Amino acid sequence: MRQPVAGKVLVHTLLCVLLLLPTAQALAAQPLASWREGQSRAAIEAFVTAVTKAGGPDYVEPAERIAVFDNDGTLWSEQPLYFEVLFAMDEVKRLAPQHPQWRTQQPFKAVLENDHQTLAAQGMDGLLQIVAATHSGMSNDDFIARSRSWLASARHPRTGKPYTEMVFQPMLELLAYLRDNGFKTYIVSGGEVVFMRAFAEEVYGIPPEQVIGTTLGASFQDQQGKLSIQRLPKVAHNDDGPGKPVSIDSIIGRRPLLAFGNSDGDLQMLQWTMAGKGKRFAGLVHHTDAHREWAYDRKSSVGHLDKALDQAQAKGWTVVDMAREWRRVYPFETPQ
Amino acid sequence: MRQPVAGKVLVHTLLCVLLLLPTAQALAAQPLASWREGQSRAAIEAFVTAVTKAGGPDYVEPAERIAVFDNDGTLWSEQPLYFEVLFAMDEVKRLAPQHPQWRTQQPFKAVLENDHQTLAAQGMDGLLQIVAATHSGMSNDDFIARSRSWLASARHPRTGKPYTEMVFQPMLELLAYLRDNGFKTYIVSGGEVVFMRAFAEEVYGIPPEQVIGTTLGASFQDQQGKLSIQRLPKVAHNDDGPGKPVSIDSIIGRRPLLAFGNSDGDLQMLQWTMAGKGKRFAGLVHHTDAHREWAYDRKSSVGHLDKALDQAQAKGWTVVDMAREWRRVYPFETPQ
Repeated sequence: MRQPVAGKVLVHTLLCVLLLLPTAQALAAQPLASWREGQSRAAIEAFVTAVTKAGGPDYVEPAERIAVFDNDGTLWSEQPLYFEVLFAMDEVKRLAPQHPQWRTQQPFKAVLENDHQTLAAQGMDGLLQIVAATHSGMSNDDFIARSRSWLASARHPRTGKPYTEMVFQPMLELLAYLRDNGFKTYIVSGGEVVFMRAFAEEVYGIPPEQVIGTTLGASFQDQQGKLSIQRLPKVAHNDDGPGKPVSIDSIIGRRPLLAFGNSDGDLQMLQWTMAGKGKRFAGLVHHTDAHREWAYDRKSSVGHLDKALDQAQAKGWTVVDMAREWRRVYPFETPQ
Repeated sequence: MRQPVAGKVLVHTLLCVLLLLPTAQALAAQPLASWREGQSRAAIEAFVTAVTKAGGPDYVEPAERIAVFDNDGTLWSEQPLYFEVLFAMDEVKRLAPQHPQWRTQQPFKAVLENDHQTLAAQGMDGLLQIVAATHSGMSNDDFIARSRSWLASARHPRTGKPYTEMVFQPMLELLAYLRDNGFKTYIVSGGEVVFMRAFAEEVYGIPPEQVIGTTLGASFQDQQGKLSIQRLPKVAHNDDGPGKPVSIDSIIGRRPLLAFGNSDGDLQMLQWTMAGKGKRFAGLVHHTDAHREWAYDRKSSVGHLDKALDQAQAKGWTVVDMAREWRRVYPFETPQ
């Protein structure tokens, strides 16, 4: 009678071990369900298979499986303007009663009057004034509460959806697929870090300590025992372009194995990733879908993609054709 | 025959689940073996038990179990001078043949002549010059290689041991105990971040992305396709005193549940930790052991401990009496 019992115990052990293994394959039949069969999906799967195959020539230890993602235009949309700029403009309107001088003072006047032409003419200086007025002069705790309050109530002018629903379903699946394969997923974005932390964990499953972004100067304050981190009206680190590999090296201290972006501001991050030893992956989300999202690249001021597209084509990086390769863009759509 | 088989399968299932649970208790009989029974050990164990007890009033989700540790004087020794300063002085000597002017130029002359009195008279300005000359003007990759080369060959003037052996065995056990209980352990130190990463993973089991420290300015360089992060001769963030809660909030984005330090430079980090909601833990390593290590506090320039000691005593934080509470200080000693 020993043989059958031993056999059952063995089967049970295997079953027990398999059930406890937290792999995507065991839990979901289709880990990249919103990606059509095609070049990009095949490239992603081939890469992940290669670096996770124990004993294989391209195997990489889990600790070194770092994946970095730009946010605006890579994980969520960025039109008609970066969503954080839309937040800042709404904040100017909300705070205007406490700042009567804004009614006559640019760039605030243009924001309050919805005068986009005058606003555009204020350029980067105007934008920085708006950011300073809405992003500093309060504690980090207060700022994250304001960000969450806006995200909960604001609606996108074209879709009428909350901004946090305008995330790319195929990218959510890619993040999950990478994590299921032992990757640590990071955001490395020009967005301000505390603003992104207001939604990154809930929406992307990316915890605060894996969100890297532009930072403001900050000071520790102790007012009669009430402690806070106060936000100063100056940029401490601009996490765009060459600032991305700098923050990756400073904060993560490891070179990523995979990087995904969508604009020239991601070029140096992609280059830095690909310059490492062994198999690496660089990807660009190419906005080619005027119907379901937006179509733009070389001529756009938001999400300008020109040099990085040339380099991707020259070096064989993966360029995701959104219109052709994604079965759906947003989670609220029906897959096609 | 069905009952016995079902019983065996049930026992086997339980065994299988238990064997796969990665708890310290299951794997090591004595998680804090170098801590004598006493106040500090009891306080640590009571705290960890409270915040990890599922369903208990003080339970904290694993994701929020952030523990931060100062390095110099908290995880390893810092006498007769911070070990990174000893590294910088050795680097001045190693690099001197390429800088003949140093033979007549302070503070380098004093270093080369082992003239500690003149060197001390150069103060913080002199120290910063030495740090700039030895810590910048190269890539991060080159600097980590230099740091590792020094750590492999240099010996401490009193013990004759490699510096990486002068780590505190009870603190290594505390790091492991916390990790076994679901904590994420971070270094938050005035030391330069890349220097600490040269040994933190191997010595403390703390990966590079969990090492926070003082940072230098950095620039991304592309020289004919050869990419590097170059170290600039200026401090970007001084991770001491109020700089510690600022970097914790900027990089981790969560308030720590536990903090350990040993000097006034850790005061704000301890205050910030304790100002959070719910059960928190603040600890100080008190250097009371002139025989096995060093005895110093209020009058020492290195590891100056005065205000933080007053606050710890006033607020009932844990003050570890090294001489009385540790069975051994270094891993190479025999436990007493």
